[in-house]
Amino acid sequence: MMKYRKGNCLVGQSGGPTSIINASAAGVIEAAIASPYIEKIYGAHYGIEGILNDDIFDFSKEDEENLKLLKYSPSSALGACRYKLKPYMKSIEEYERVFSQFKKYNIKYFVYIGRNDSMDTVDKLNSYAKSINFDINIIGVPKTIDNDLFGTDHCPGFGSAAKYVATSIIELSRDGAVYDNEIINIVEVMGRNAGWLAASSILAKTDIQMSPDMIYLPEVIFDVEEFITKLIEKFNKKKKLTVVVSEGIKDKSGRYICEIDTLNKDIFGHAQMGGVGDVLGNLIKEKVCKRVKVVELNILQRCAMHWASKTDIDEAYKCGLDAVEYALGGYTGKMVTLERVSEYPYFCKTGLIDIEKVANREKKYR
Amino acid sequence: MMKYRKGNCLVGQSGGPTSIINASAAGVIEAAIASPYIEKIYGAHYGIEGILNDDIFDFSKEDEENLKLLKYSPSSALGACRYKLKPYMKSIEEYERVFSQFKKYNIKYFVYIGRNDSMDTVDKLNSYAKSINFDINIIGVPKTIDNDLFGTDHCPGFGSAAKYVATSIIELSRDGAVYDNEIINIVEVMGRNAGWLAASSILAKTDIQMSPDMIYLPEVIFDVEEFITKLIEKFNKKKKLTVVVSEGIKDKSGRYICEIDTLNKDIFGHAQMGGVGDVLGNLIKEKVCKRVKVVELNILQRCAMHWASKTDIDEAYKCGLDAVEYALGGYTGKMVTLERVSEYPYFCKTGLIDIEKVANREKKYR
Repeated sequence: MMKYRKGNCLVGQSGGPTSIINASAAGVIEAAIASPYIEKIYGAHYGIEGILNDDIFDFSKEDEENLKLLKYSPSSALGACRYKLKPYMKSIEEYERVFSQFKKYNIKYFVYIGRNDSMDTVDKLNSYAKSINFDINIIGVPKTIDNDLFGTDHCPGFGSAAKYVATSIIELSRDGAVYDNEIINIVEVMGRNAGWLAASSILAKTDIQMSPDMIYLPEVIFDVEEFITKLIEKFNKKKKLTVVVSEGIKDKSGRYICEIDTLNKDIFGHAQMGGVGDVLGNLIKEKVCKRVKVVELNILQRCAMHWASKTDIDEAYKCGLDAVEYALGGYTGKMVTLERVSEYPYFCKTGLIDIEKVANREKKYR
Repeated sequence: MMKYRKGNCLVGQSGGPTSIINASAAGVIEAAIASPYIEKIYGAHYGIEGILNDDIFDFSKEDEENLKLLKYSPSSALGACRYKLKPYMKSIEEYERVFSQFKKYNIKYFVYIGRNDSMDTVDKLNSYAKSINFDINIIGVPKTIDNDLFGTDHCPGFGSAAKYVATSIIELSRDGAVYDNEIINIVEVMGRNAGWLAASSILAKTDIQMSPDMIYLPEVIFDVEEFITKLIEKFNKKKKLTVVVSEGIKDKSGRYICEIDTLNKDIFGHAQMGGVGDVLGNLIKEKVCKRVKVVELNILQRCAMHWASKTDIDEAYKCGLDAVEYALGGYTGKMVTLERVSEYPYFCKTGLIDIEKVANREKKYR
């Protein structure tokens, strides 16, 4: 297994950013700089696109201060992409291009930070490397606020987003409590297919903070009639409610609620701009309570580095560091995972999972 | 002037909350508890409504730990209202009711924390007290994220909201920089008539962070055609733009832009829910760039205690403390102000302004 040998390291980021994805990149770069086996550490600008376009920069001389800043900078500093490689039987030129770049830059270690689409890229490149007997170690590092990568206890990026969501729900609920009147807050949370983030809003609920009152996840079929009935029931008991909805909730026919014209008039011509919060807000105004506030947490929840979780930053960083160690140790075609060693005190170590088990697969809330 | 005499103190909060309005209440309560002249310290539940409805609670036995928590709790813990007293010639019963309550609870010192409507309440009650020769000292304490109270260097609550807005703009702009493509971010900021908060988004702009690119304030007539022309000009030079708009921008006829159907179709049937961001976003999508993200900072910007400014909290607290001192010292019919003593190092002391100069008046950005 062990096949330490000299070469260069390349790191890339892919998919939607999180507030702590740069911590993983900082980990990769620091571990690579520290290793006697790695001479140069390159970054791919805009992920796999940077490799294809020869848009690659050299981190080797990056000073320590900048790396410290990188660890705490939000969004993907290297730039990201949503580029998906075709199967290599169908697009051999792309693969040849990528591997000629690996050869040109003498890349022996490639770390790709991203979600399931990115893990698909890792999987395909690793399979292709094997098929042409190319000497490279390719490791994936997980990141997503959606927390839906398979095989890891949780995903770097999720903790910070969950902290932001729960904190915002507390603050919004406090705000709604100000006047002596009725109010229904609708908070729309990200998560197209997985409800982890919406579910994490329950962290806001304590003995003295009684919201959120209802939480809707995309994993559960959303029935508009049932929702209104339950809401009225709760509203009759408590005149201030906070309802959390995942952007991706669907009805039994599989249609996104944000695309439904609940009023049977064509007043929602902007499905991609407004969302499920506005749809439900309008419905509630008509049927339950005039005073409705709709808050879409929007991209704030994935970029709020100012409120990131230290544990999340440290774990993301650790995943980056260990990705290089695993690559140096001879592993390839794997994704770094977090394995929960202890609950109290909380501690996770890293592990590895075969990349084909992760690629294109979602871990849902239920 | 000096007429220290024993009596009770009453504190109330009014109008929309800020993240730090409770710091002022904590200041009032602490100063009142500490004073040998004040026996009991009462809180009016939901502002003036609590006085009218005899919904008043006793803070005298509040322990220090709770007061410390109050100082750092967002939103109006005492509850607030938007109740506006009629002129006392028109509604003598209301005034008689308020003053019979003052008498019942032996209130000699009344501190009311709020914005210009609340200062109008202070003004009216003070005038009425004089007219009936009622022995009471009434002091207003400013609070508003809009920063539009006259006679004070700035308003407690504004600094924290400005910090939140500027931080969010940095993070959103970083997020938008991730992909190698075009994007126009529209960020909608509160401020119906005053643009201080939208203007404060410029704090996000530095040598390495080149956004926001355009900022629109309600004080300046908004011309849709001119906006699109300027936007296209900037967009041709720079493919990633962040535009900040105050919710209250109006066209030359005085109509709110958020109420305009820019597409000349009735697709915006929800003016009170969507806002100017959505209107401009749709327009831009049609005329400038397909990739538009609209972020409404919404009530998050006024309740985000997790990101409040320490200076703001300390100043709000100081205003509360000093309000009691001023009242004890014999002042009445005044609002506490912040006076900037020094720029570097920054330092403000409190002062006083006649309440009739503040009531119902707005300090605009220009």
